[in-house]
Amino acid sequence: MRPLVNSPPPTNFTVTKATMAEFPALNGQSVSYAVLEYPAGSVNPPHTHPRAAELLFLTYGILEVGFLDTTNKLFTRRLQAGDMFVFPKGLVHYQFNCAENDSAIAVSAFGSAAAGTVSVPSTVFATNIDDDVLAKSFKTDVDTIQKLKAGFQPKA
Amino acid sequence: MRPLVNSPPPTNFTVTKATMAEFPALNGQSVSYAVLEYPAGSVNPPHTHPRAAELLFLTYGILEVGFLDTTNKLFTRRLQAGDMFVFPKGLVHYQFNCAENDSAIAVSAFGSAAAGTVSVPSTVFATNIDDDVLAKSFKTDVDTIQKLKAGFQPKA
Amino acid sequence: MRPLVNSPPPTNFTVTKATMAEFPALNGQSVSYAVLEYPAGSVNPPHTHPRAAELLFLTYGILEVGFLDTTNKLFTRRLQAGDMFVFPKGLVHYQFNCAENDSAIAVSAFGSAAAGTVSVPSTVFATNIDDDVLAKSFKTDVDTIQKLKAGFQPKA
Amino acid sequence: MRPLVNSPPPTNFTVTKATMAEFPALNGQSVSYAVLEYPAGSVNPPHTHPRAAELLFLTYGILEVGFLDTTNKLFTRRLQAGDMFVFPKGLVHYQFNCAENDSAIAVSAFGSAAAGTVSVPSTVFATNIDDDVLAKSFKTDVDTIQKLKAGFQPKA
Amino acid sequence: MRPLVNSPPPTNFTVTKATMAEFPALNGQSVSYAVLEYPAGSVNPPHTHPRAAELLFLTYGILEVGFLDTTNKLFTRRLQAGDMFVFPKGLVHYQFNCAENDSAIAVSAFGSAAAGTVSVPSTVFATNIDDDVLAKSFKTDVDTIQKLKAGFQPKA
Amino acid sequence: MRPLVNSPPPTNFTVTKATMAEFPALNGQSVSYAVLEYPAGSVNPPHTHPRAAELLFLTYGILEVGFLDTTNKLFTRRLQAGDMFVFPKGLVHYQFNCAENDSAIAVSAFGSAAAGTVSVPSTVFATNIDDDVLAKSFKTDVDTIQKLKAGFQPKA
Repeated sequence: MRPLVNSPPPTNFTVTKATMAEFPALNGQSVSYAVLEYPAGSVNPPHTHPRAAELLFLTYGILEVGFLDTTNKLFTRRLQAGDMFVFPKGLVHYQFNCAENDSAIAVSAFGSAAAGTVSVPSTVFATNIDDDVLAKSFKTDVDTIQKLKAGFQPKA
Repeated sequence: MRPLVNSPPPTNFTVTKATMAEFPALNGQSVSYAVLEYPAGSVNPPHTHPRAAELLFLTYGILEVGFLDTTNKLFTRRLQAGDMFVFPKGLVHYQFNCAENDSAIAVSAFGSAAAGTVSVPSTVFATNIDDDVLAKSFKTDVDTIQKLKAGFQPKA
Repeated sequence: MRPLVNSPPPTNFTVTKATMAEFPALNGQSVSYAVLEYPAGSVNPPHTHPRAAELLFLTYGILEVGFLDTTNKLFTRRLQAGDMFVFPKGLVHYQFNCAENDSAIAVSAFGSAAAGTVSVPSTVFATNIDDDVLAKSFKTDVDTIQKLKAGFQPKA
Repeated sequence: MRPLVNSPPPTNFTVTKATMAEFPALNGQSVSYAVLEYPAGSVNPPHTHPRAAELLFLTYGILEVGFLDTTNKLFTRRLQAGDMFVFPKGLVHYQFNCAENDSAIAVSAFGSAAAGTVSVPSTVFATNIDDDVLAKSFKTDVDTIQKLKAGFQPKA
Repeated sequence: MRPLVNSPPPTNFTVTKATMAEFPALNGQSVSYAVLEYPAGSVNPPHTHPRAAELLFLTYGILEVGFLDTTNKLFTRRLQAGDMFVFPKGLVHYQFNCAENDSAIAVSAFGSAAAGTVSVPSTVFATNIDDDVLAKSFKTDVDTIQKLKAGFQPKA
Repeated sequence: MRPLVNSPPPTNFTVTKATMAEFPALNGQSVSYAVLEYPAGSVNPPHTHPRAAELLFLTYGILEVGFLDTTNKLFTRRLQAGDMFVFPKGLVHYQFNCAENDSAIAVSAFGSAAAGTVSVPSTVFATNIDDDVLAKSFKTDVDTIQKLKAGFQPKA
């Protein structure tokens, strides 16, 4: 992670992970890290970590965070630098740097060496699930589904 | 579950659960059931169970099933009555009764007395997540997000 | 399990399992199934599953079920189609189709991919445990032990 | 356990336990003890411990031990003072002091503060399981079952 | 933790924890944090965390870290800002800011909401263990033990 | 362990272990043993077992035992033959045979097949941790540290 400390901030939302995949010494140790960098206005889309809770520590900037409990009730909080927030295991959550100009930087710890990430938008719209199945699931028409899928196509 | 055995099939996709909530004797026993009834053409939308794998046993009809692995690769299978399929813990999956006229019925076992369910469409579009956050997450505009949310509004 | 759906019922009590042994995809998923078919009057003898609770779902017929708690107190229930019953992990239990003519069919889910089965009668009488040890254990004579063992000999 | 150290040996097989029930400080510590005293010729009947393996340490005398694996194969060993033997979790096992005159004493450790004990003979024959169910289970007649049950009746 | 971000650095080695004790929302989430501030030349004395591994992320300065494996072999490493280091669960470890003038700051994640800390020097010398027991344990005389204990007395 | 039963008592404090390392059948069984022999006046120095609680059963002699809780509060007890004492997982503890002439013998059970042992004195003074780091940690001078280290050097 040395480059992180000395680099200019990224222009897109960026996650740099230190899990068992990157750092094999974590095998069996039940802990891992991610460093999250949010340019102004950027979003970390709704996602879950199947195998761990996430404890986010905001080290710079401001950040709006939210998660949905098992009854789909939304909890949100606006964090300042130095604040922490816990996203319970398996629940869908997101973060949004609502600042107009400033970046935000957070360090997140996970209670697993391989927490996993399931991103909601790309899991459904960047994959080959049948358009009909998605249209029925999202209570919309195939045309809307195809437009949403187009947004997740790799750029030519 | 006695009514299930003697009732006419439902007209919408229906889940009848036997988890710790309905059946307190399951407390501490790490197992639960759901009976799933699919009218012709109906879908069980993409969802995850945060705390258990699901072992589906198709007892009647045909059913198309799919899940996304951690690299977002889609696995699908068309099941016949008597087939089983396992949805690994924490991964997004769905089922679709692709028959034109016939119902399908499945029994699913879970390796937890409280497996939980996070339905992808309703978690993001039937909740109060900010439209801007969703538009950025789904790489679309606020207008499309509002139309999708409208589909999940309770009927007047 | 497709043959199960289309076959005539068996003439003896029959268990068809879908555990990790038969279905390797269950490895690590902590769930498995068994389909239990009971001709009229047949018994699933007292047994335990060392690694999981069992959640039985009676899909056809009637069934008398029982288990012994840790103080050897007996709990019994007569189930009808659509009923569920949970046998707690590690406790001795049995089922008996008390109907005179009708078969019964149940599906059981286990909270382990390899629940294991220790059948009480065959563990003690179909094995080579010394007759003296068994006579003292069952507070009877060697002659009775040998008669009981004879019932578990493979037929010539 | 101070009385054990200073008492004359018992005349029947005797188990003195130090589990969470007798010794609440063991709560959460995943370990417990039993001291086992076997007069000459006595048997600890076939039984299982649902929640722990047992590590037996023979401190005095000789002892014949056996357990049945999951395929009902019998493993036996004759132990001398100072020997240890491990009974795997959930498997049926027994011990027999085959000496003609000498007592045997063992200390057993369990990897649980509440290992539990399910004794095979008394679970089936000292309880109220229906005679018909037992006769079918043990492949014998109701008469033999009633005689076996009589051996486990409390003395008048 | 907001004060941490805006305060001048401390003059002694300082640990600021965010565990279940300070932050009850961590209950059941298996993750916690500590922020570690090391003035130049200061030491975090040898200690263990009984219930979790520690993943240290050095965000500022340089730091010499070490741990002893189960055979008492010492592993050391000199970290630069941006480096991570994992201290395995239950092993004794320490950190030393070997810089002459500069502070060091680290963030540590633990795979438990209540990792616990057992500090080696204060556990033995700031407590009432009998001087004789300690002299025999440390292979020294009672006089040396009493001098060491004096260093851990609260200042008058 | 047969030699233990028939040998003269040792002249130093001696531990004879039966863990997974000595007894591979313990793999996966979560239980192990140690036999502890204390000549008069000998000490088992302060240590922890990272992976298990210890349940000590004093079979001969008298023994003073102590452990430090997570707030460094000392608990001690003087045991007589037949007494048991539990040392909670991960906490520092010691035993001292305070008798002037008599040996003591104990059997300890652990709720793990590989409980591990971290001895406090030898972990810090029989290893190569830098003298400066130790002097700062123990709030003493380098000279005292070097004398303590000398006591743990192998004899020439």
